[in-house]
Amino acid sequence: VYLRAWQDFDHHTLILTEAPEPGLAHIGWRVATREDALDLERKVEDAGLATRWIEGSEITGHGDALRFFTPGGLPFEVYWEVSPVDPPEEMRSLMPSHPSRRTHYGAAPRRVDHVTFAVDDVVLEQRFLTDVCGIRHNYYSQTGDERWGSWMSCNNLSHEIALIRGATNGHGMLHHVAYYADSVEDVLRCADLLVDHGYGLEWGPGKHGTSGATFLYFREPSGNRVEVWTGGLLIFAPDWKAIEWGGDVQPLGNSYWSTPMPDSFVEGTSLPRDLAVAP
Amino acid sequence: VYLRAWQDFDHHTLILTEAPEPGLAHIGWRVATREDALDLERKVEDAGLATRWIEGSEITGHGDALRFFTPGGLPFEVYWEVSPVDPPEEMRSLMPSHPSRRTHYGAAPRRVDHVTFAVDDVVLEQRFLTDVCGIRHNYYSQTGDERWGSWMSCNNLSHEIALIRGATNGHGMLHHVAYYADSVEDVLRCADLLVDHGYGLEWGPGKHGTSGATFLYFREPSGNRVEVWTGGLLIFAPDWKAIEWGGDVQPLGNSYWSTPMPDSFVEGTSLPRDLAVAP
Amino acid sequence: VYLRAWQDFDHHTLILTEAPEPGLAHIGWRVATREDALDLERKVEDAGLATRWIEGSEITGHGDALRFFTPGGLPFEVYWEVSPVDPPEEMRSLMPSHPSRRTHYGAAPRRVDHVTFAVDDVVLEQRFLTDVCGIRHNYYSQTGDERWGSWMSCNNLSHEIALIRGATNGHGMLHHVAYYADSVEDVLRCADLLVDHGYGLEWGPGKHGTSGATFLYFREPSGNRVEVWTGGLLIFAPDWKAIEWGGDVQPLGNSYWSTPMPDSFVEGTSLPRDLAVAP
Amino acid sequence: VYLRAWQDFDHHTLILTEAPEPGLAHIGWRVATREDALDLERKVEDAGLATRWIEGSEITGHGDALRFFTPGGLPFEVYWEVSPVDPPEEMRSLMPSHPSRRTHYGAAPRRVDHVTFAVDDVVLEQRFLTDVCGIRHNYYSQTGDERWGSWMSCNNLSHEIALIRGATNGHGMLHHVAYYADSVEDVLRCADLLVDHGYGLEWGPGKHGTSGATFLYFREPSGNRVEVWTGGLLIFAPDWKAIEWGGDVQPLGNSYWSTPMPDSFVEGTSLPRDLAVAP
Repeated sequence: VYLRAWQDFDHHTLILTEAPEPGLAHIGWRVATREDALDLERKVEDAGLATRWIEGSEITGHGDALRFFTPGGLPFEVYWEVSPVDPPEEMRSLMPSHPSRRTHYGAAPRRVDHVTFAVDDVVLEQRFLTDVCGIRHNYYSQTGDERWGSWMSCNNLSHEIALIRGATNGHGMLHHVAYYADSVEDVLRCADLLVDHGYGLEWGPGKHGTSGATFLYFREPSGNRVEVWTGGLLIFAPDWKAIEWGGDVQPLGNSYWSTPMPDSFVEGTSLPRDLAVAP
Repeated sequence: VYLRAWQDFDHHTLILTEAPEPGLAHIGWRVATREDALDLERKVEDAGLATRWIEGSEITGHGDALRFFTPGGLPFEVYWEVSPVDPPEEMRSLMPSHPSRRTHYGAAPRRVDHVTFAVDDVVLEQRFLTDVCGIRHNYYSQTGDERWGSWMSCNNLSHEIALIRGATNGHGMLHHVAYYADSVEDVLRCADLLVDHGYGLEWGPGKHGTSGATFLYFREPSGNRVEVWTGGLLIFAPDWKAIEWGGDVQPLGNSYWSTPMPDSFVEGTSLPRDLAVAP
Repeated sequence: VYLRAWQDFDHHTLILTEAPEPGLAHIGWRVATREDALDLERKVEDAGLATRWIEGSEITGHGDALRFFTPGGLPFEVYWEVSPVDPPEEMRSLMPSHPSRRTHYGAAPRRVDHVTFAVDDVVLEQRFLTDVCGIRHNYYSQTGDERWGSWMSCNNLSHEIALIRGATNGHGMLHHVAYYADSVEDVLRCADLLVDHGYGLEWGPGKHGTSGATFLYFREPSGNRVEVWTGGLLIFAPDWKAIEWGGDVQPLGNSYWSTPMPDSFVEGTSLPRDLAVAP
Repeated sequence: VYLRAWQDFDHHTLILTEAPEPGLAHIGWRVATREDALDLERKVEDAGLATRWIEGSEITGHGDALRFFTPGGLPFEVYWEVSPVDPPEEMRSLMPSHPSRRTHYGAAPRRVDHVTFAVDDVVLEQRFLTDVCGIRHNYYSQTGDERWGSWMSCNNLSHEIALIRGATNGHGMLHHVAYYADSVEDVLRCADLLVDHGYGLEWGPGKHGTSGATFLYFREPSGNRVEVWTGGLLIFAPDWKAIEWGGDVQPLGNSYWSTPMPDSFVEGTSLPRDLAVAP
């Protein structure tokens, strides 16, 4: 099943495939041009990592793609061409800026926002992502010398990708996928709907001090963690320096209203599906 | 200091007096007429409780008042006449429905909402309030045979007065005073302001399943608990039956999103100031 | 079709019946007891108006009811017993305070709020409702000597019933029915949904200065006006005096943000269905 | 007076200077590096426009800057170095992501968002901004052959700069400056504050279909138009094609809820202050 939120402009932003247990097939990232993908291929190989190419198609919803495992074990895919969005008649909107009619049931987030992974060594993985892949380091959470998490983006979002320290034994795990809601009212409505349908919430509604965004985390039925969030800061400065959230403010960075974080939250929820596949 | 929220229509809704330690002087309730006060006097005395009268004045902001201690030890006052609201020039609004100009700084709640007390025996106190004082019992929280709390009102609010079980040794304590904010956005803004000014939050932002209202609890500097809340249900049925929140749904009644309640929350925060005063 | 909002505690709050053209069958009001209905019967007859009784049933969703036309021509019904709410399995909620599971599609208002009528003479009709029916006059809009509208309630709402001046030729017309949304976000979401489905909005989103509530008016497909609104003031004072919105603030009372009111708004949308029926 | 919103990370985002009448001194844009500024200088001169340099300083809050008039007559400034933000003690926040403590009075927008100009020929000016200055064309409003407006950005915002057709006689005028509020609640609170303090609103609260953002326009005391807005879409696609809002949906693009636009809205509010100054 190929899914997208009502104002995701891409062919899909989440693919679900049937499997005996939860797992992460790959994470896809779009670059602007074929040259950008080739340039990244060189840099990744210079860093000593193997790469391979897969053929795109109407089914994948994008053109040819480069694949590799990051040093922390995350299965990445990079592509540049995307299939056009072509919703069925009943999902079409009059509005030319609405690739689908605004969803009028359920939590109805506007768009995909970011994805977060659990890795053994946050610093090592963040440096690869920043120095090799060119993803700006926006802020990090630190207790003494230990890096608890790092948040990064190539655009104005507070993060497109984040890393949280977990015990993954070299196989970086999916931590959560986040969709963006239009308002805190929408985040709270999502919380209400989940509870009223018998699903537990894992953490929140709460607020991250780091991004300033209001969050809600829950597990979908097969066990993967999902976040619905809204608001917070955008980053525009061309010379942005990563902000440290350590010392006294580290807890506020994590949970601005001190909404207690459950122990389960540090766990990654899905291993890469094909651990043994050479890229 | 006499305080009221920007759309409180009464002379004041909170009085602060200097004291060496936090305490509760009295809780005032308005009835419609002198006859209503006299009628209540008879009923309270028939219940075996002592009453006394105090003279009203411009300083108290209301006319003559009846005073008594409830069976649970709460210092109640009942009056019917109120002094007119007469704000200074700079606080006046053009709007005839605004007794003061809408506050444009801080949390700025719209109006007082309710007051909650800790008492030894919730059932006993609730029956006095309902059977003698005529305050409708709206809902209660129960674990097995134990009544954890009861919520009551004479109007459409989900509660004007509530009781929570605490160890008060016969002297009912103030648990919290609640002001009504216009939106969850305003409750969350209040949370942000408190944190940004170095104050801790005690519980929330969260949601009560019972009332459906969004809440935030914190302690003001001298230690009394304050709630800012919004939304939830109103009660219109003339034959309303008190709703039981027990068994499996008791925790959801308390904290709909499972935002963990801190242990400190069961504590009353202020003893009646004049424990030894005969009414 | 019998409709109610997700937290309406009554059997229904709106009945739709098939008809060749839009019309108003009757407006039902609940009183607490049979004695209250009999008392009202006497007062209405003393005012020179005819009354009749109809038998209640499972189909009407309430017990026996008194019917009469007001001086302005409005078809009123008064009852005291209501049938219990018994939703089908898939609409039931775990929450004992939710007579139905919270609706998770569409505008999903929480409850019915009020009903407004167009009448020839607002002052005359308001006096009947206040003096004979005992409905408190809360505020009114006045241009010079001309009463443009009056808003009334028996409870804490800013109004349960309102009157707007229109040319009705003695037959008071339905002006609009209002449902209460939980937040301005919900009112705005309702506006978005209507536009995205090709329906026009008649007025708003905007804000009434009088009540302080945020409003949206639209016509349902057969032409009746519907309001979705939220927020604003509640009235608690036992000695409330009706507030005048006249002179310079009259326009702000009507449209606080000066959102232009369309000319069509003064029109009633449905005549009483049975103009010739003796009560 | 140098102003910035509470989470503007730059030294200032608005400068007010005393003058006998409203006017626009210049609009400053930050580029990443000196090379970017030099590159732009070449392109602007190749387009046949004059440029000049001004010296930066602690007072200007930035380093050396390039100045030029656009073809439509807008006074632009381009710089790359900025002075650090150093708020006085009482405005400092504990939060390392808060360059100032969150403002707790007034409308309190989070950050600057965009600036809009009135020009004689929207197509001509937009092509200069896109082809010479490299600013992506995001969407435009068109009635038949006539371009009513164009919206552009270099980042994920729906626009940083916009153009509206006006009669400016070759001297592009300021149309409005927009600040970003965190929620529609905040936009509506801003509307309430303005009305309660006797200021009129020019247009809104309303919603633009184009961006999907909720807006409010008003004039500050000297006559310049200010917008407070929130929400709407972000643009991430590297191959974004400008969306046309013409034909039947043109009015919805302008005013999604059909909130009537006043005639005054098409007027620019400030001419460039130094019309005769050669760059």
